[in-house]
Amino acid sequence: MNTYMNMAVNMANMAAGQTAVNPPVGAVIVKDGRVIGYGAHLKSGDLHAERAALNSCRESPAGADIYVTLEPCSHHGKTPPCTEAIIEAGIKRVYYAYRDTNDKVDGLKVLNNHGIETIHLGNTDVDELYRPFNIQLANKRPFITLKSAMSLDGKIAHRNGDSHWVSNDESRRDVHNLRHHHDGLLIGSHTLLNDNPHLTTRLSENDKHPVPVILLGSQTLREDMNIFKHPHKPIIYTSNEENVQFKDRAKIFFGNYNLTEILHILYEENIASLLVEGGSSIHTQFLNEKLFDDLIIYIAPKIFGYSEYQLHQGDPSGQLDLILHHVEKLESDIKLTYRRTPACLQD
Amino acid sequence: MNTYMNMAVNMANMAAGQTAVNPPVGAVIVKDGRVIGYGAHLKSGDLHAERAALNSCRESPAGADIYVTLEPCSHHGKTPPCTEAIIEAGIKRVYYAYRDTNDKVDGLKVLNNHGIETIHLGNTDVDELYRPFNIQLANKRPFITLKSAMSLDGKIAHRNGDSHWVSNDESRRDVHNLRHHHDGLLIGSHTLLNDNPHLTTRLSENDKHPVPVILLGSQTLREDMNIFKHPHKPIIYTSNEENVQFKDRAKIFFGNYNLTEILHILYEENIASLLVEGGSSIHTQFLNEKLFDDLIIYIAPKIFGYSEYQLHQGDPSGQLDLILHHVEKLESDIKLTYRRTPACLQD
Repeated sequence: MNTYMNMAVNMANMAAGQTAVNPPVGAVIVKDGRVIGYGAHLKSGDLHAERAALNSCRESPAGADIYVTLEPCSHHGKTPPCTEAIIEAGIKRVYYAYRDTNDKVDGLKVLNNHGIETIHLGNTDVDELYRPFNIQLANKRPFITLKSAMSLDGKIAHRNGDSHWVSNDESRRDVHNLRHHHDGLLIGSHTLLNDNPHLTTRLSENDKHPVPVILLGSQTLREDMNIFKHPHKPIIYTSNEENVQFKDRAKIFFGNYNLTEILHILYEENIASLLVEGGSSIHTQFLNEKLFDDLIIYIAPKIFGYSEYQLHQGDPSGQLDLILHHVEKLESDIKLTYRRTPACLQD
Repeated sequence: MNTYMNMAVNMANMAAGQTAVNPPVGAVIVKDGRVIGYGAHLKSGDLHAERAALNSCRESPAGADIYVTLEPCSHHGKTPPCTEAIIEAGIKRVYYAYRDTNDKVDGLKVLNNHGIETIHLGNTDVDELYRPFNIQLANKRPFITLKSAMSLDGKIAHRNGDSHWVSNDESRRDVHNLRHHHDGLLIGSHTLLNDNPHLTTRLSENDKHPVPVILLGSQTLREDMNIFKHPHKPIIYTSNEENVQFKDRAKIFFGNYNLTEILHILYEENIASLLVEGGSSIHTQFLNEKLFDDLIIYIAPKIFGYSEYQLHQGDPSGQLDLILHHVEKLESDIKLTYRRTPACLQD
């Protein structure tokens, strides 16, 4: 793959997970075989990567080439069109890896009309980078990662309900890395009431903490709950009006929402990626409704035999076909990443 | 390894090979779990990575952390000390991967004296990144890569002298990638006179072309030589005064220089990395004098039997111990990267 496009992908990856609901974009400007500028789009409303890269140039970019992960925008959004900046700067060629699917964008045409050559450079890392964004845009819901840890025989907790055994240190670190890379973290009432979790990322001093999302159902919140200490206000869905007393400490949606409605609301709340940590009945619900994009399972080297706490409660409404995307060894645990079949991706 | 330090390494790698004789440096600024700035040192005399990263911030970096591949400088060189910029910006913590071996630099001490915490984060990618720089600094010569292509039985050309068979397309692309990443490309008089090579990089529209370096000996240059069409003026060492007629088209050093002297001159000419492409007698000379850091050999799936063109002409002055650093399959060719033993690295 092209060296400069790979650099642009690295720039984009630096901003991955912090640009919601925009996609992360990276750009590199090259002249006479030297990098003379670089930029990333760091957050929605801020400079686009192309303008950031042009700003960073300490010599004239006239006659230079720009490598950008996404087709430059040609419309006035929160910022003026990047095509204008590229044309004004006298850029010679634009190498892009991904066409913008937004109908308002036809940057290539605008550039070509101004005599700027546009060249497509396919890049599998860029395809991966924009997969969540495409899913979000097509479905108006967050990209969804279902995460579970289980014994080799598919039990998510011991028969006594204890689930603290589940994974080793390396797997736990990996989970916190998942939290860092998602905007929201969803759990059900059972996990909330039994574990009173903090739902924070505990990786380093510079963690990004996902917004806690609680499907509380008819249960009642308690004063002593650790989610109230979270750096972000939790988002809570409940049918129980008693919880109104906590309305200053959480964003509470009262009513009987189905999963699709909940996910649309989260998307409107700028949660572009959602990590679903369970427990078991939440997991079953997301699986049955085929509302997930990545399914991540950590398998511990244990066999439990009988336990009612299973990865999936009862039969799913239909058989679920998965594609194994990635396998990783984490000490003696295994991390499996599955995706839904391409057919499912269209719905 | 730390996510943010990995980002800083990617920033530095973007500038690798274009900062001579400075090392490439990358920096990332993080606040509340978000990247708010990034920078790379793009060329000698230009902004250091820390200042570039601070410049890129579109929100206040006060209270933020900076991740930088190299200890920030504390002395006035071509640019003012980075420690000053870091202190003025109100940075809280400085994470660094590599101590600066320059005696004039004690950035950590200056930062600590101003109440800024400094934390070491080891990173093997950073160690690799600075290996060439350490070798250059310690030996006042370029980092040297010896490159050769041979048959499985160690012949660098067929018995009729033909060496154009040597490698497949993927290997050839790899060689041009090597050229792109070196400042100078050295050949001997035999290769120059027989092949009349262009010595350019032919990878994409945005190649960096290494400066041609010719060990001409007592031979004479010709008008029709392709090196005179090269984007850079060739550097030529010769004992033959007749070549003075070409003094406007090349930088010619007249006299009998030994390899060590030649390498010191190249270093003074800002050639921080040198790719030695041979032929055989040049290769033998560099091997015998142990003047190399990486030895890269492409092995084609051929057996030639008798040929006088061998990887090494005659016995080396001493046995050479190598460390195999990397093996790569390039279609049906193999690429082997060896390094000298650590003991050799000290000389």
